[in-house]
Amino acid sequence: MAYSLSEIVTRFGGELLDDNGVTVSGVAPVERAGPQEIAFVSQAKYLRDIGSSQAGALILPPEGRDSSRCPRIVTSNPYLYFARVSSLLNPEPRPAPGIHPAATVHAQASVAESATIAAGAVIGEGASIGARSVIGPNCVIGEHVALGDDCRLHGNVTIYHHCVLGSRVILHSGAVIGSDGFGLANDKGRWVKIPQVGRVVIGDDVEVGACTTIDRGALDDTVIEEGVKLDNLIQVAHNVRIGAHTAIAACTGIAGSAKVGKHCMIGGAAMIFGHIEIADGVRISTNTLITKSLTKPGTYTSALPFSEHGEWLRNAAHLRNLDKLAHRIKELEKRISELEGKK
Amino acid sequence: MAYSLSEIVTRFGGELLDDNGVTVSGVAPVERAGPQEIAFVSQAKYLRDIGSSQAGALILPPEGRDSSRCPRIVTSNPYLYFARVSSLLNPEPRPAPGIHPAATVHAQASVAESATIAAGAVIGEGASIGARSVIGPNCVIGEHVALGDDCRLHGNVTIYHHCVLGSRVILHSGAVIGSDGFGLANDKGRWVKIPQVGRVVIGDDVEVGACTTIDRGALDDTVIEEGVKLDNLIQVAHNVRIGAHTAIAACTGIAGSAKVGKHCMIGGAAMIFGHIEIADGVRISTNTLITKSLTKPGTYTSALPFSEHGEWLRNAAHLRNLDKLAHRIKELEKRISELEGKK
Amino acid sequence: MAYSLSEIVTRFGGELLDDNGVTVSGVAPVERAGPQEIAFVSQAKYLRDIGSSQAGALILPPEGRDSSRCPRIVTSNPYLYFARVSSLLNPEPRPAPGIHPAATVHAQASVAESATIAAGAVIGEGASIGARSVIGPNCVIGEHVALGDDCRLHGNVTIYHHCVLGSRVILHSGAVIGSDGFGLANDKGRWVKIPQVGRVVIGDDVEVGACTTIDRGALDDTVIEEGVKLDNLIQVAHNVRIGAHTAIAACTGIAGSAKVGKHCMIGGAAMIFGHIEIADGVRISTNTLITKSLTKPGTYTSALPFSEHGEWLRNAAHLRNLDKLAHRIKELEKRISELEGKK
Repeated sequence: MAYSLSEIVTRFGGELLDDNGVTVSGVAPVERAGPQEIAFVSQAKYLRDIGSSQAGALILPPEGRDSSRCPRIVTSNPYLYFARVSSLLNPEPRPAPGIHPAATVHAQASVAESATIAAGAVIGEGASIGARSVIGPNCVIGEHVALGDDCRLHGNVTIYHHCVLGSRVILHSGAVIGSDGFGLANDKGRWVKIPQVGRVVIGDDVEVGACTTIDRGALDDTVIEEGVKLDNLIQVAHNVRIGAHTAIAACTGIAGSAKVGKHCMIGGAAMIFGHIEIADGVRISTNTLITKSLTKPGTYTSALPFSEHGEWLRNAAHLRNLDKLAHRIKELEKRISELEGKK
Repeated sequence: MAYSLSEIVTRFGGELLDDNGVTVSGVAPVERAGPQEIAFVSQAKYLRDIGSSQAGALILPPEGRDSSRCPRIVTSNPYLYFARVSSLLNPEPRPAPGIHPAATVHAQASVAESATIAAGAVIGEGASIGARSVIGPNCVIGEHVALGDDCRLHGNVTIYHHCVLGSRVILHSGAVIGSDGFGLANDKGRWVKIPQVGRVVIGDDVEVGACTTIDRGALDDTVIEEGVKLDNLIQVAHNVRIGAHTAIAACTGIAGSAKVGKHCMIGGAAMIFGHIEIADGVRISTNTLITKSLTKPGTYTSALPFSEHGEWLRNAAHLRNLDKLAHRIKELEKRISELEGKK
Repeated sequence: MAYSLSEIVTRFGGELLDDNGVTVSGVAPVERAGPQEIAFVSQAKYLRDIGSSQAGALILPPEGRDSSRCPRIVTSNPYLYFARVSSLLNPEPRPAPGIHPAATVHAQASVAESATIAAGAVIGEGASIGARSVIGPNCVIGEHVALGDDCRLHGNVTIYHHCVLGSRVILHSGAVIGSDGFGLANDKGRWVKIPQVGRVVIGDDVEVGACTTIDRGALDDTVIEEGVKLDNLIQVAHNVRIGAHTAIAACTGIAGSAKVGKHCMIGGAAMIFGHIEIADGVRISTNTLITKSLTKPGTYTSALPFSEHGEWLRNAAHLRNLDKLAHRIKELEKRISELEGKK
């Protein structure tokens, strides 16, 4: 499917310059785009790359307005514009509606006629699958799960019983929604399991990455609000609440009952203690451990800078002696003051 | 199913006060429990919350004995008591025994008559499934796996060939038991795979979280002793041994041949070097890297404290120069001693 | 299947000493090997263990040539030699070729006659499976995936559409290849998904661990070159390239568009920033965060040493005040210089 630039501008706005009637059918990086493709430059510093581009059209920031004679669309946010154009040119293929004969759908499950249930998927008793939702091959949907419209579950996703998902939710392969939280009481050295009777409740427009795990609540629910985006291999413990439109990069862990605000951005491999609150709009750097509540927006970091190993060894030895170093400094200050006093 | 408080006390002990004949059918947090529900307070500091509670009954610590006129059970460990009551009120639903027609069970596998094999599960040649065990949808049980009684495998679990699991083992979705350890020999820059001929052997009453991976041993077995509780997304490498009743939080990694003691508690995202030994009863903090054996109980930590990013930048620069800072302190001490000597 | 030592030496070289015609059918650790088994010692310091060994034969380094009268093979790299012998004695069992009746293979997929498709596997339209490749139970192979010869996919693996894999690739259970990269543009606080139109391209002889996730490229491909070995629970983000014969331990994360060189060795739980380049032959320590490009080989580290918790508390307080400590040292130096000047 190809679109003219004027069709694109009609949909998404922007200023169209030097249109030559070209139609574009795909997106590509500036350096590799061909005459049927549209490329973008998000920042002024990359404008130097466009001179040699073979792209049929460009999406440029205002500073780049006159950097090229190529047919181009000028917009204040080229990256966002590109996202929209790419979605237009790369619509998610929709499998035909219907239940594959190799799927297993419980007689008391409710599947919209326009939904697709792929081979090997297993849909439990009382589950409901909304309009146009696609359940990929070998997914397991537990009893009484409620799934909204236009959801997309890729292959091998698991949702435990009674979880509730909104519309337009995307779950990637290996994701597990609603597994038991890690709730244990200790009885003279032996662990006694605490039933996890809450659910996972996921809002509209949430995306969950591959092998990300979201545990069900112990008593209350674990809640992922609308528009949250979770990358791969993230752990969300029981009773966590993640505020709307927060994005979290891969390998991050959020411990039980933590509340993360709205519009937060959390870097990869961050760890967040349980029972704390993160304010709206907080940014947390990669590899950062957050041990207490953050009450105001800002960026928070705790990563140790890396060094060449020999240098690291020399420095690391002192890390275990910082308190002694600090005492030596204090002692020096005292001795100097004494010397100075004697003058 | 509802129980009177006297029935509960008969089962689990504790002192029953102001019983009014109420029956309870569920558990809930203090602030949200209704007249049919029982709530608990684990610590004295939360007793202030019970004044406005609508709970039908309470589980309280001895200090809370007289904090309420509500029907209540007083016990020295309210959290444990609550665990038992919740298990009583929330029994795990048991699917009907039998092999679903959409399961694939090898003719030479042995499945107890009281076991349940869900749709899409695949049971390999020579595998044996014990009494009342439940194999969830789309699980894969390899050849010659031996699974005890009353086990519960949620959907999409994988167990590789020849692994051995005890009774009452719970495996959450996405867990992988018995994958090959990361054993490689280097041949002039190319890696040669070392066959992993050991197994994974899991004791009774072990629980394994979602997407947790436990590799089979290289020559000997990887061993998870009885009562161990593993959270989600944990990596257990080949030939590791985890001692009985140890609990490990999510995102932790344990490298090859490490031996973890009994009754340890390991925080999230901890990393444990290979070929070391951790004594019984050790506690390891979240995000802590353990690089050598720990021979005595205690709590061990290595997490860098987080700061606001600008402050972190100012401090982090010095981390790479600690050795120089230490030398400067030494130098100062020498110079001061000299000055002092001159007095 | 048992082999004589002379057959083994004929295949793999090495010096055979004191052969008594023994045949060996398995490998085992020195301390537990029996008369039908062969054991190895990789380093001189372990030679003391062989005195009491019941092993039928030994693989020894040159220093151990005369440490035993047991039938033995002397070689410069016993660990590599052992890998080869173990592979000979433990050939991967090959299931019979053919498509299991409980598999679902699309009519427009192409499966080699010698390939094996296990029960519950789902092969999408246009996919091709090479000669002697084994697709484990409940795997999901997306549309137009191309898989080479002699590949081995264990149960519950997922490959998204259009990904390309070479020959002799091993994928462990729970691995996800080709999930969408974490590409998002922000539109006034809401995230807009950027279609991920690249693929994952995996070379020959690659092994991917359990629950490891490799995202497809945003525009270009994510590339894993030949001979790369990835352990469990690793995250490889979109547009990453990992150079040939690099080995990466578990729980590591590599952010988008990072380029890792050839023959690198990366420890567990390392994190690598996006858009940086790691030179060939680099080694990165466990738990190390790499925040900028590494242009030359060497070992790089950033892990904080652990301490007993009380000691850690005392030292950690100073970590947040390093900049102040450094200023106090500078101040002391000034004051001392002044005092010295006054002499």
